[in-house]
Amino acid sequence: MGVTRHVYAFEAADSSDKQLIGGKGAGLARMTQIGLPVPPGFVITTEACREYYASERRLPDGLMDEVRAHIRKLETKTGKVLGGREVPLLVSVRSGGALSMPGMMDTILNLGMNDAVVVAFAEATNNPRFAYDAYRRLIQGFGEIAMGAEERSFVEVLEAAKKKQGATFDHQLTVDSLEEICKDYKQVILKELSTEFPQDPWKQLEMAIEAVFRSWMGKRAVDYRREFKITPQMANGTAVNVQTMVFGNMGDDSATGVAFTRDPGTGENVLFGEYLTNAQGEDVVAGIRTPKPIAQLEKEMPEIWQELVKVRHTLEGQYHEVQDFEFTIERGVLYMLQTRNGKMNATAFVRTSRDMVAEQVLSKGEALLRISPDHLEQLLHRRIDPSAKAEPIARGLPASPGAASGQVVFDADEAERRGRAGEEVILVREETKPEDIHGFFQARGILTSRGGKTSHAAVVARGMGKPCVVGAEEIQIKDREKLAVIKDQRISEGQVITIDGGTGAVYLGEVPTVDPEFSEDMKTLLAWADEIRRLGVHANADTPEDAARAREMGAQGIGLCRTERMFNAADRLPIVRDMILAQTAEERQAAIDKLRPVQKADFKEIFMAMEGLPVTIRLLDPPLHEFLPSLESLLLEVTSLKSLRDRLEDGKPNPDSLLSALEPSLRESLPPVEKLAANLPGAKDKRVIDDLIEKRELVLQKVRETAEVNPMLGHRGVRLGITYPELYKMQISAILEALAESQQEGVDAVCEIMVPQVTEPKELERVNELVREVREQVEQDYGVSLNFKFGTMIEAVRACVRANAIALVTDFFSFGTNDLTQATFSFSREDAEQKFLPFYVEHGILPENPFEALDIHGVGRLMKSAVQSGRGSNPELKVGICGEHGGHPRSIEFCHTIGLNYVSCSAFRVPIARLAAAQAVLREQNRSKEQIEDPDYPFNVL
Amino acid sequence: MGVTRHVYAFEAADSSDKQLIGGKGAGLARMTQIGLPVPPGFVITTEACREYYASERRLPDGLMDEVRAHIRKLETKTGKVLGGREVPLLVSVRSGGALSMPGMMDTILNLGMNDAVVVAFAEATNNPRFAYDAYRRLIQGFGEIAMGAEERSFVEVLEAAKKKQGATFDHQLTVDSLEEICKDYKQVILKELSTEFPQDPWKQLEMAIEAVFRSWMGKRAVDYRREFKITPQMANGTAVNVQTMVFGNMGDDSATGVAFTRDPGTGENVLFGEYLTNAQGEDVVAGIRTPKPIAQLEKEMPEIWQELVKVRHTLEGQYHEVQDFEFTIERGVLYMLQTRNGKMNATAFVRTSRDMVAEQVLSKGEALLRISPDHLEQLLHRRIDPSAKAEPIARGLPASPGAASGQVVFDADEAERRGRAGEEVILVREETKPEDIHGFFQARGILTSRGGKTSHAAVVARGMGKPCVVGAEEIQIKDREKLAVIKDQRISEGQVITIDGGTGAVYLGEVPTVDPEFSEDMKTLLAWADEIRRLGVHANADTPEDAARAREMGAQGIGLCRTERMFNAADRLPIVRDMILAQTAEERQAAIDKLRPVQKADFKEIFMAMEGLPVTIRLLDPPLHEFLPSLESLLLEVTSLKSLRDRLEDGKPNPDSLLSALEPSLRESLPPVEKLAANLPGAKDKRVIDDLIEKRELVLQKVRETAEVNPMLGHRGVRLGITYPELYKMQISAILEALAESQQEGVDAVCEIMVPQVTEPKELERVNELVREVREQVEQDYGVSLNFKFGTMIEAVRACVRANAIALVTDFFSFGTNDLTQATFSFSREDAEQKFLPFYVEHGILPENPFEALDIHGVGRLMKSAVQSGRGSNPELKVGICGEHGGHPRSIEFCHTIGLNYVSCSAFRVPIARLAAAQAVLREQNRSKEQIEDPDYPFNVL
Repeated sequence: MGVTRHVYAFEAADSSDKQLIGGKGAGLARMTQIGLPVPPGFVITTEACREYYASERRLPDGLMDEVRAHIRKLETKTGKVLGGREVPLLVSVRSGGALSMPGMMDTILNLGMNDAVVVAFAEATNNPRFAYDAYRRLIQGFGEIAMGAEERSFVEVLEAAKKKQGATFDHQLTVDSLEEICKDYKQVILKELSTEFPQDPWKQLEMAIEAVFRSWMGKRAVDYRREFKITPQMANGTAVNVQTMVFGNMGDDSATGVAFTRDPGTGENVLFGEYLTNAQGEDVVAGIRTPKPIAQLEKEMPEIWQELVKVRHTLEGQYHEVQDFEFTIERGVLYMLQTRNGKMNATAFVRTSRDMVAEQVLSKGEALLRISPDHLEQLLHRRIDPSAKAEPIARGLPASPGAASGQVVFDADEAERRGRAGEEVILVREETKPEDIHGFFQARGILTSRGGKTSHAAVVARGMGKPCVVGAEEIQIKDREKLAVIKDQRISEGQVITIDGGTGAVYLGEVPTVDPEFSEDMKTLLAWADEIRRLGVHANADTPEDAARAREMGAQGIGLCRTERMFNAADRLPIVRDMILAQTAEERQAAIDKLRPVQKADFKEIFMAMEGLPVTIRLLDPPLHEFLPSLESLLLEVTSLKSLRDRLEDGKPNPDSLLSALEPSLRESLPPVEKLAANLPGAKDKRVIDDLIEKRELVLQKVRETAEVNPMLGHRGVRLGITYPELYKMQISAILEALAESQQEGVDAVCEIMVPQVTEPKELERVNELVREVREQVEQDYGVSLNFKFGTMIEAVRACVRANAIALVTDFFSFGTNDLTQATFSFSREDAEQKFLPFYVEHGILPENPFEALDIHGVGRLMKSAVQSGRGSNPELKVGICGEHGGHPRSIEFCHTIGLNYVSCSAFRVPIARLAAAQAVLREQNRSKEQIEDPDYPFNVL
Repeated sequence: MGVTRHVYAFEAADSSDKQLIGGKGAGLARMTQIGLPVPPGFVITTEACREYYASERRLPDGLMDEVRAHIRKLETKTGKVLGGREVPLLVSVRSGGALSMPGMMDTILNLGMNDAVVVAFAEATNNPRFAYDAYRRLIQGFGEIAMGAEERSFVEVLEAAKKKQGATFDHQLTVDSLEEICKDYKQVILKELSTEFPQDPWKQLEMAIEAVFRSWMGKRAVDYRREFKITPQMANGTAVNVQTMVFGNMGDDSATGVAFTRDPGTGENVLFGEYLTNAQGEDVVAGIRTPKPIAQLEKEMPEIWQELVKVRHTLEGQYHEVQDFEFTIERGVLYMLQTRNGKMNATAFVRTSRDMVAEQVLSKGEALLRISPDHLEQLLHRRIDPSAKAEPIARGLPASPGAASGQVVFDADEAERRGRAGEEVILVREETKPEDIHGFFQARGILTSRGGKTSHAAVVARGMGKPCVVGAEEIQIKDREKLAVIKDQRISEGQVITIDGGTGAVYLGEVPTVDPEFSEDMKTLLAWADEIRRLGVHANADTPEDAARAREMGAQGIGLCRTERMFNAADRLPIVRDMILAQTAEERQAAIDKLRPVQKADFKEIFMAMEGLPVTIRLLDPPLHEFLPSLESLLLEVTSLKSLRDRLEDGKPNPDSLLSALEPSLRESLPPVEKLAANLPGAKDKRVIDDLIEKRELVLQKVRETAEVNPMLGHRGVRLGITYPELYKMQISAILEALAESQQEGVDAVCEIMVPQVTEPKELERVNELVREVREQVEQDYGVSLNFKFGTMIEAVRACVRANAIALVTDFFSFGTNDLTQATFSFSREDAEQKFLPFYVEHGILPENPFEALDIHGVGRLMKSAVQSGRGSNPELKVGICGEHGGHPRSIEFCHTIGLNYVSCSAFRVPIARLAAAQAVLREQNRSKEQIEDPDYPFNVL
């Protein structure tokens, strides 16, 4: 068994193996190997780091022998000697794992200095000030990092020295002062740690390497990895880079700088960055001197500038990616100290993708793969200006992205009033209900203190593309007092807040936001995505406006048009309630007859907006009680009304609190408040109150009758359609008459009827009987021949299990993965996201929230098997998804993998879905044979 | 293409093919072929009937030719001639499908009579009275059945004739009267139908055959088939039996009778039945003369008696089943007219099964297969005396079988008080809650007006084996007025009602009930079942008493011990509420620490009761809010208390209604009612009220916090155990300490810990960490080595899908098919059974209620795949079921088929499960090769 090799010179390392030599090491190795000017050095592998931890924090046997051999080679290469009295070799010792964790681990510079070397160095550089300054930096850095001394003690020495000398800045310190400081620093170490600062450079090197290894498990690094969900699979241990020091502070022909190969703010194809003459890297960071823009170098050091321009092309040619690099110029010579992929904002990513294809640096596929869907999302919504420094006053769940500011209002009527009056408002409620919908239209954003990401507020806001934060539980909302309380802060109606639906943050006052950008660059990229992707991208849209927006965003159809949303509009809800509260079949039919023409008009408009593209209309899904007021509010109302009556009878005036429990519409039906307050109402007024009580008690009774223990699993969808066929029949008539009229008017309407909550083919057969019946009638009435598809949601588990039989009676399936996920896990989304799901994700019991990212191993398996068995019995079956996962990139990739025909998502996510669908194809093409065959590879389920 | 043969002589028909020749035809054919004295005849097949309907109600071509040929043969055989003037042949024409539908279809007797034949017959029999009586019966029967005349018209003629002659009974009519009646009857037909009564016997025969065919689709028959769910697969069309008439009314050497080969009431091995001398079959039915017990025949006609005794043995030897047969004695000659399997009560079935094995008529397997589990169920509960003629006043869902009478009480405290005082009470509530449990213990039965078969009341009652009717929605319950209202009927506290939990019926007053019978016969049968079955049968039991009862019933272990039921006991609920309402971790721990010793004691007692048999203990499952009062009751309380305070301040006395809203315990904490009523309370009393308000508001707040939109899918089971590990840890400690102490005390305790609601192996790993931790501690504290199993409920769909991974971290699976069915269908059981499920079953959308009979094609498929993939990764895996389906016979058969190790059901169903498990083995052995290979054969799913 040979000893594992742990150390590689930059020229000999495998520069593609970041896992072994870390990101920084890989960059240095690559640059060395392609001939860029890199100060010589070597890298100790992450493997050594893992062995260090595996053997109770001991350096691997033989590691220091390897290190010594590599230092010898460095000495040969540079003509310098570690600890040498003539030309001493100084090195830097830097950490560097597979993933960049900026500032999280430790670096030691100027290693190799000691009391003797500093003298030699002063002579060799002919610059004693510089030498002692370097020594001072080493003692402090090494003392803190490798030995564990307190930073404070060093700072005190330095401040004392400056005071003594009367200096303001470090660089004003004299050689003598610096020499003194070095002595005092060493005393600090001795006093604090009862150990001498090690004079032996080899000892220094060994301790520095160990310190870097140790920092991998330092609190900062561990916290960082947890925060950014960096698993051991992604990065396991740090490498150590030992590199010859170069100095940018050796005079005016020296400098240090940082640059991007393109502008990371705009993506423009120019060298971008800044530098400081006669300075070390840490001076740039310290911010004492203002760095100069890199373009100035063209004048100051034209040859170096030319060299940098060449470096820029060389790097991009190598990496096919914008690079972020560090350099130092020592006495007129350029040295490259680091390179890595540049972090850019979304705009820049999009622009550089497009440019680099034009420049033939990237293929279209590569250009698409480097854009993350998150980037696109940034560009599609207003967001908090990244440069604003506001602190959130509360946090909720990010339910619908985008940022908005406005005056707080606590009820939908007020939101509508103020919104119509041109004011910008944020609707703030404990939770919202269908009857609040008119307030949504006029609000800039919605904030709730209860409910999860699938709560009414969240779903409606997402559908409308309005910013929304839900479940911000720290906020206590007192509707009646028109007050929101956060800890000891009170926010009244009319005060301005800002919400960020992308992060869940809530800010007091107006925080600057920036506009969304849907640039030509993005359009170009999305057009390339459309060329590549195989999945269709449809949108979920319930209104003609939504449909038009979806079409603009590139949707190829409406994958889900929810008819219940049409029921909630202010002009319809009363009819819907009449229908539910009807005491006789005739009353019910009368209400239904009023709804039909309204629904027909809706459908015609949507067909028009989507002309030539399919519109999938889902028949009514929610349980009827969703259209009624809540039990609790009714109870309060009835009790208040009764108390009011009792008090009037007792001859007592009524307190305002009794009235405030009532719905505004109810309050209006009461006698005038002044009359009540003065207890002056007559017998007629009392009768009004008695009537009101009776009416509300009727509603209360119906609410009790229709109440359900588990509404998610209740009397809804096709179950409702089968037990109240007149309801579905009305909807089918409205759809097919709209289709017939559109046809007659020359509109190319493409229609699909979809049935929700199906568990058994017989349910579909019954609905299809209604469809056949209505179709015959409509074809006869209009003298047309109708053409449309009939399909089903697959959102109950049993529908997946019975997919083979269900496929025989349908033209298409559409996975409703919101409900399917709830049923597969037995997790009620609203309850789970409020209660245990965050804990589950935080503690790794589930890798992700399955309501955001499709649960491949559970829900995904059911889907895959449903697709296979459905197509098994009906090869023509079209299969899509219209749950929220249809807009989630990795879930889209899964949908592509199991062969769906399309995804449908909210209009605002259509561009993201277009990109993700193309990336799915590209990643599939890039899969290796091993990955294809590996049962554990993502998506290779079943 | 030859013409299908439609007619078979009794001696030539295939007597095993009931589908073709009907049950009656098969019996006649079999008896003929084994040499019993059957009047000669033939049978027209059901095939002919189907052709009749397939060709728009025309008799098949050639049918009457075949019939004519067979009549010719009959003439040869009997020496009589159809329509003959010398010895006329008379025949009966009777219906008879594959399944018996008593009284549902038509029969015509004495066919062949006409104006000439009656004269010949009078001469041939030397009995003109008899001849004209026979003719009269033909004209009426034929007129009504074959021609469609009204019965009323014939009755009027008969009554007029009797009046004219001064006769009271038919048999007092003279020959002349009868001759007159025949004439008048024919006039009735002519007048009503404008057609003559056909004189041609061949015409009569054709019309009679058609009439029998027609009666298959008659209203009565169609309704009957719908009511008893007789599908075309079970019986499709009726056969027609044409048979030579014999007459029991030809003198004192003639008789007619009905007999069973054994006593159908007791099962005793004696000939049982009755007969009438000188009478026709219909006279027995008419009930004018009282028949004599058959034993009397031994004296009256000893030779016939001997012959009948022989017939009895011959028939049982043929059919291996008790036979119910009809016979006629014509002038000293015995004729057999029908035989079929005897319908008996449950006791008789059990006794005859045992006897017939002893007599070697049946094998043990045959004896077990003929007992239906329904029979067993009858024997295990008190039931309404079948001879009682009470009419239900309301109907609900049959939730827990058994019948009980008692005084109505409307709250649990009152039930407890009266029950303890020795009164028999029925607890009647809108719905019950965990805090009502003490009322259950003292009640004879429970009746609720809301909730489904899985509601709290239903589940608890079943567990206790108490009769329970739930969801009787016609009953309006007014708790506070202590009144139940059904339509215009008012039932007050103390009135007696009777409920039948096996049918859902509710009766006013006391209806007689009969005792359950668990006889030696049944014990013997069940012992045979135990020899045969492969499935283990465990019981669900939560208390030591339940466990003891389960053991008595033959349970081989406790498959489900629900720990939450222990939380609900009156002495514990307050501690549990303290735990939930705790404001600090210390308060919570204090409550938990109080629960531990109580739970430990429970477990020890159960281990003791089940010594040597496994006890599977499920950790806490329900969401915490189930242990708190309901939001609605709290709201009412708080509002009432506030009103009370306001009124006191206003100086008004308080109405009783305010106090009645309060829980009894709350009412007790208030100042004395008299003081309140007189408005005399002092400041201290007011403070008491204020304090109460504050306390209840705190509870209200917690109820709001823990409230869930869909509790079925909520924060419960392992999710609770993971987020509140102190709770599960307490339970695990209590279990393992009980185990350790039992071991030390020499009790052979066999323990299994089961985790509910699992969806992902990591959940189990976390619980198992707690188990490991506790085990180490307990083993150390007690100095013992513990041995127990660790397993999981499989009740979430995802657990089925991930069974392979879950099996790696568990010793056993137990299917919770109640929850699994809810999740698979997305049906909330309580909502579904109240709302749409009855409609679904009635309209054939689902074949059965999937909460009663396991849904093979949905839930069953998931189960089968979970068993396979679970055993795939862990071949030692033990798999059982503890949902209610574990006590349902056909579901048990499915469990056997997919290879489960055991079923677990309520103690009262253990005998049924033992029988069903044995029947599953027997039916499996009896399956044909075709059935095994047929993918559509029941249970051949996947």
